[in-house]
Amino acid sequence: MKKLINSTDTVVTDALAGMAAAHPSLAVDLDLKIITRADSPHTGKVGLVSGGGSGHEPLHGGYVGYGMLDAACAGEVFTSPVPDQMLAATKAVNGGAGVLHIVKNYTGDVLNFQMAAELADDDGIEVVSVVTNDDVAVQDSLYTAGRRGVGATVFVEKIAGARAEEGASLAEVADVARAVNDRSRSLGVALTSCTVPAAGKPTFELGESEIEMGIGIHGEPGRERVQMATARELAGTVLDAIHDDMPLFDDLLVMVNGMGGTPLLELYILFNEVQKILEDRGARVTRNLVGNYITSLEMQGFSVTVCRLTDELTRLWDAPVETPGLRWGR
Amino acid sequence: MKKLINSTDTVVTDALAGMAAAHPSLAVDLDLKIITRADSPHTGKVGLVSGGGSGHEPLHGGYVGYGMLDAACAGEVFTSPVPDQMLAATKAVNGGAGVLHIVKNYTGDVLNFQMAAELADDDGIEVVSVVTNDDVAVQDSLYTAGRRGVGATVFVEKIAGARAEEGASLAEVADVARAVNDRSRSLGVALTSCTVPAAGKPTFELGESEIEMGIGIHGEPGRERVQMATARELAGTVLDAIHDDMPLFDDLLVMVNGMGGTPLLELYILFNEVQKILEDRGARVTRNLVGNYITSLEMQGFSVTVCRLTDELTRLWDAPVETPGLRWGR
Repeated sequence: MKKLINSTDTVVTDALAGMAAAHPSLAVDLDLKIITRADSPHTGKVGLVSGGGSGHEPLHGGYVGYGMLDAACAGEVFTSPVPDQMLAATKAVNGGAGVLHIVKNYTGDVLNFQMAAELADDDGIEVVSVVTNDDVAVQDSLYTAGRRGVGATVFVEKIAGARAEEGASLAEVADVARAVNDRSRSLGVALTSCTVPAAGKPTFELGESEIEMGIGIHGEPGRERVQMATARELAGTVLDAIHDDMPLFDDLLVMVNGMGGTPLLELYILFNEVQKILEDRGARVTRNLVGNYITSLEMQGFSVTVCRLTDELTRLWDAPVETPGLRWGR
Repeated sequence: MKKLINSTDTVVTDALAGMAAAHPSLAVDLDLKIITRADSPHTGKVGLVSGGGSGHEPLHGGYVGYGMLDAACAGEVFTSPVPDQMLAATKAVNGGAGVLHIVKNYTGDVLNFQMAAELADDDGIEVVSVVTNDDVAVQDSLYTAGRRGVGATVFVEKIAGARAEEGASLAEVADVARAVNDRSRSLGVALTSCTVPAAGKPTFELGESEIEMGIGIHGEPGRERVQMATARELAGTVLDAIHDDMPLFDDLLVMVNGMGGTPLLELYILFNEVQKILEDRGARVTRNLVGNYITSLEMQGFSVTVCRLTDELTRLWDAPVETPGLRWGR
């Protein structure tokens, strides 16, 4: 295992220290492993808190900032953070208008965020939780009852963040977050495994020309192992799986996401195929993201996430955002 | 070889088609393989043209846009573009104030850009070329006489782009480009090789615990092969090599760049160490980039590029930029 780390024990704290050093707009509590906007709390604004295991960067810490999250809680690599972290983050960003928890559907995350919400309630902070579960690969999985939450989380954080920024109520922000999740679907493909630092060896093995269709972001098994195919064929297979679950038409936001070890060159090749297939079927890709947005350490592979836009979701997608991992002009 | 491509023959054109589909602000000529700002030319503004072999994305095509490049020419993977491409790009972005060519120091690129400049001159377009050569690893290399041009190219494109945007003359834009290159140094480290699609096998091999210190962005040999070390030790070795060549003090712009296959988590760990070492030595890291900015396909590894800032360079670094690969608020 060759990794650019100091020790397997300090991976997350060292990385958080690096984020703090790189981004003065963020405040990082290295003991609690929470990242907040340095100017928190924002009085009268709904606070947005997310978090989960580390190893998916820029998710979630890289999405803390204007127009997106107020705080992120970092667990160890591929391990849920604990309720104390979530509670501290919730308190830190509570501006009196309540706090939204955005939770990827993994059993540990869901239980821990639930406990944190109850503790926050005891402290008089209103919390609403929205769970993302956009991965069409499998029903139930290694760490999940129901569907896994993956790429839609990026869309939810961006769009709910924009809604909160314009002064919407907690119920309104939660509504738009749920709408984004409901209208989004994903599927991922692994070309290689990844190696969790503390484990020291690859999570799974794939043959020379074998890929895992429907991979989870922690290397959980997908639908099946198949032979490597062309970008065009893979794009078709992935979109078929998504379309079977949620018909794709009208205006779409499409993310072609790298798993951490995939060259951007290849992601653009995939996006080209995805876009052509969707437009051939009569849909329109009106917004997109191409790059590394929700990763699995150094895994080679990609995922496609599609959200069926409305005018309102498009407007919120286009709103200014200023975070280390996602930003555009104000 | 598992790559997300359609065929080894169409890697670059398919990726360029994907860039065109993803970014309406860009105009892409798929025959000539040039990317220009869709609103080119800008009358009265100095045009900035760069380019080189593909496989280093987001460099260069991802840096076309407001505040940075006007055009980029894409060669095949790790292969120089040809003078016809450079000439066409130069003509397309010529707004009457002359054109700056930003050229990484590789023999093919330098010769081809030189020929293109002569052809442009025949057409009455004034061209000045600035060659980047910031890599302290080795003097002369597989494709280079003198030093290789690497990460400083990103800084030059950003800062010269800002200077051009504010209406400076060709001589002034070239001056600031040269100043950035003169004040910048880099060193890269490879943990793994990469595989050029057309070659179908890794460019080189490294042992289980072996790394290449001073790697080139095409996998050219560096200074030596050494045993894997901690992030702290590697940061120290890299900064020592840079400091031996150009003492590091005062205000610094530091890029910790991923080679394409390195998790962002690890890049932040490295940045933390780099920042601590520099500040312990009395320098100040006042600006930074942490991420994949000049890559080598799926290579695992990193490079550090340091630029000794002046107030003027800091001002230009902070100027608005809107490109797919680098952007911040206007």
